[in-house]
Amino acid sequence: MPRYLEDFHEGEIWRSAPVVLSEDEIVAYAKANDPQPIHVDKVAAAAGPFGGLIASGWQIAALSMRLFIEAGGHGDSPIVGIGIDELRWKQVVRPGDTLRTVREIVSVTRSASKPDRGTLKTRVTVLNQRDEPVMTYIALGQVRARTVAAQA
Amino acid sequence: MPRYLEDFHEGEIWRSAPVVLSEDEIVAYAKANDPQPIHVDKVAAAAGPFGGLIASGWQIAALSMRLFIEAGGHGDSPIVGIGIDELRWKQVVRPGDTLRTVREIVSVTRSASKPDRGTLKTRVTVLNQRDEPVMTYIALGQVRARTVAAQA
Repeated sequence: MPRYLEDFHEGEIWRSAPVVLSEDEIVAYAKANDPQPIHVDKVAAAAGPFGGLIASGWQIAALSMRLFIEAGGHGDSPIVGIGIDELRWKQVVRPGDTLRTVREIVSVTRSASKPDRGTLKTRVTVLNQRDEPVMTYIALGQVRARTVAAQA
Repeated sequence: MPRYLEDFHEGEIWRSAPVVLSEDEIVAYAKANDPQPIHVDKVAAAAGPFGGLIASGWQIAALSMRLFIEAGGHGDSPIVGIGIDELRWKQVVRPGDTLRTVREIVSVTRSASKPDRGTLKTRVTVLNQRDEPVMTYIALGQVRARTVAAQA
């Protein structure tokens, strides 16, 4: 069932199940998308600034999306990604780390110029098994409004 | 050869070669990382808001990184990703689109509290075959300084 702008509320929180990120997943993602030694070469990474392989920051961002989508996301609602603000990588992610995502809607704003739609602002936090935030960002997404959609 | 903070300059511009993003690549990335119908299901996507498959926004972000790394990036310099600001997806990317990346260093700032390092602020733009920006963001990365590194 689709959700419309009117169905989203400030303060709404969604929490993912935890998942373990394996060395194979870290290396596979990085080989395809971010092939830096620190993400793909165990020997070079061991001699590098973090003393071992770490996950690509882009993989953590993508993972935060995947966990949400796999859990059903916003259902049938097409939410169009507008952008990302204030993304910060706060802790390195190493093979075997367990990650989970928390998403909190911080604002729901109808467009003044196009009132058939609005913007959801969501604070996304990825935490590790020590409950340390490893990445945070603000996601901006566009969603349709019911009231105008119903008139269409 | 590593580059240090002192070797980076405001206004320095790097341009990638163009690459074609195929339908297979769009679907493969999304199946692994962002399995929404609009990215993985041709039939559902055709009936959706964009009239066909479009690439995951995270894939475009990762691609902008991959093009840079594959071209040599900053050489041997370990640049630690701090964060991303003002990321905006401006145009959809469809199968067969040709993408290229432009990176411009907008500032080079030595840390006041830890003068052995500094921050590079880089404006990243991904353009399509019509020279339209499809994605823009500001990347913040930490790099070591030579002067203090030489004393170590």
